[in-house]
Amino acid sequence: MYPLEELQKKIDAEIVKRTDRLTGRKPGGLYAPVEYSLSVGGKRLRPVLLLLGYNIFSEDVEKVLPAAFALEVFHNFTLLHDDIMDEADMRRNKPTAHLKFGVNNAILSGDAMVFLSYQNLFECQSPNLMRVMEMFTKSALEVCKGQQYDMDFENRMEVTEAEYLKMIKLKTAVLLGLSLKAGVLLAEGPEEIAGQLYDFGLNLGMAFQLQDDWLDSFGNQKFFGKKIGGDILSNKKTFLLISALQRATGKTKSDLVGWLKMDSFNRDKKISAVIDIYNQLGVSELTRNKIDEYIIRAEEIVKNITLKEEAKKRLLEFTGKISNREV
Amino acid sequence: MYPLEELQKKIDAEIVKRTDRLTGRKPGGLYAPVEYSLSVGGKRLRPVLLLLGYNIFSEDVEKVLPAAFALEVFHNFTLLHDDIMDEADMRRNKPTAHLKFGVNNAILSGDAMVFLSYQNLFECQSPNLMRVMEMFTKSALEVCKGQQYDMDFENRMEVTEAEYLKMIKLKTAVLLGLSLKAGVLLAEGPEEIAGQLYDFGLNLGMAFQLQDDWLDSFGNQKFFGKKIGGDILSNKKTFLLISALQRATGKTKSDLVGWLKMDSFNRDKKISAVIDIYNQLGVSELTRNKIDEYIIRAEEIVKNITLKEEAKKRLLEFTGKISNREV
Repeated sequence: MYPLEELQKKIDAEIVKRTDRLTGRKPGGLYAPVEYSLSVGGKRLRPVLLLLGYNIFSEDVEKVLPAAFALEVFHNFTLLHDDIMDEADMRRNKPTAHLKFGVNNAILSGDAMVFLSYQNLFECQSPNLMRVMEMFTKSALEVCKGQQYDMDFENRMEVTEAEYLKMIKLKTAVLLGLSLKAGVLLAEGPEEIAGQLYDFGLNLGMAFQLQDDWLDSFGNQKFFGKKIGGDILSNKKTFLLISALQRATGKTKSDLVGWLKMDSFNRDKKISAVIDIYNQLGVSELTRNKIDEYIIRAEEIVKNITLKEEAKKRLLEFTGKISNREV
Repeated sequence: MYPLEELQKKIDAEIVKRTDRLTGRKPGGLYAPVEYSLSVGGKRLRPVLLLLGYNIFSEDVEKVLPAAFALEVFHNFTLLHDDIMDEADMRRNKPTAHLKFGVNNAILSGDAMVFLSYQNLFECQSPNLMRVMEMFTKSALEVCKGQQYDMDFENRMEVTEAEYLKMIKLKTAVLLGLSLKAGVLLAEGPEEIAGQLYDFGLNLGMAFQLQDDWLDSFGNQKFFGKKIGGDILSNKKTFLLISALQRATGKTKSDLVGWLKMDSFNRDKKISAVIDIYNQLGVSELTRNKIDEYIIRAEEIVKNITLKEEAKKRLLEFTGKISNREV
């Protein structure tokens, strides 16, 4: 098996190579936002997970680089469209695609990226390719559902923790599970392990999204790539806000609700006031505990799986990266 | 073989059935625009073509109804997103989805429709399904390219007839070709005929889009389902406008260019002034001639194809419907 860094290098190089291939393709207006979004970087989490799942059962990871790339293209399509819907200005420390190229182009190039994902998937030779494509399609639809719930929550004051967890499962976690499972199946690994690694990826994805929520309030802007407090400004029903609304009483509660209902406000003041309330209520620790819960579940799955030690080590390594990340 | 009306009935019923199945699916916000766009009607051209292609080689058209439905869902996805980009208010005599449900929901539901298309395709059992999906993906990307060219043309004064014809080929015609070819291949019909029917569909699609352009200026609003003159108001580089710009000289030319450059104007006045110019220049006849050219080419292909007479009859019947349509 390859070390994680090696898999990361392989996919990074593949993304550069395949993104370069888009240069000069016509019409330029369609491909420029695709190139842009793929070249501003990112953790490449999903492709690395696919390669990792594949590499447990097969050494020739080059064979599935197109599928790994496909997942990254798909992920970037969701970012392009989500950023329009969320009216986000920044992504990975750069202007979002719709700010740079206009909303219409971000919509259309996002659409094109979906079909580019499928085209890249088709490049992979595997007896299981059809099944992987079917699973991919199901997950993609789940991601849409998750985004819809996320938008629905913006217009509701009360969102339960359970509802929130279901939403991030759909919006983020299923695709991480799918990435690993697709890797295993493309390598023709055993069905049972494909399922277990899907569950592992789900838990990892939950931790990952909760960490994302946490970073929005408690992260370091230099690393984070987005403005701190973006979720606070848009009243996004994150785990932090939901927990705070649940815990707050008396004046703290009325202050928090007051900020949520305020139509015009100083942006920095709102951010620091809400973070103050989070601190009073211990929301940061609450979130860290929840993250740890999912990480522990993910680790439990790895322990109980029938896999060579090297594979288990890689999976646990990955888990460590997720829970310690600052970006 | 079934008569065209029978194929039409079958797909109409299937669309109703499959659209009904979406009712109550959660999240409602995601599925409501999908249901809406599928239930406001339409000619169901693409699914009928798929069924027709299939029916030439196989009687059990029920087997490919999911694939036929998939093409209609895909087509409606493109309408949803195009209508956002074009800021269109009306479609099939009803408010467009983004007006009814908001832009964000129209974007997201459109995305979901792409994955619903693939899911429906997966339901079809055929040894050629993988190839059909690959062709479908390629065509889908071509449709995106066509839409990009269409948008690019809006910002350019000079667009040649050749550029325009290439654009509508991508945006409209390839999907009609694909529909027929997919039908033939799903029925495991001969490769050569699949290719010939693809070309037939291409020519049909060109005629269809030119007819669409023509109807925008010379159609009957009651049937057309969109406001007459929408293309004129948005300076859309249709075959009509391109021909008029090519033909016009002197005062007619400066009048026409004047209307194109005017920032504020009375909508009805602009529409009737431009249609007057079209009439002076014989643009309606020019367009009708071009439509006939493509129809004749389509008919030639049918004549030279090795097919039973009944199949040829159906294809020519379809051609007649396209060139005489008012909607």
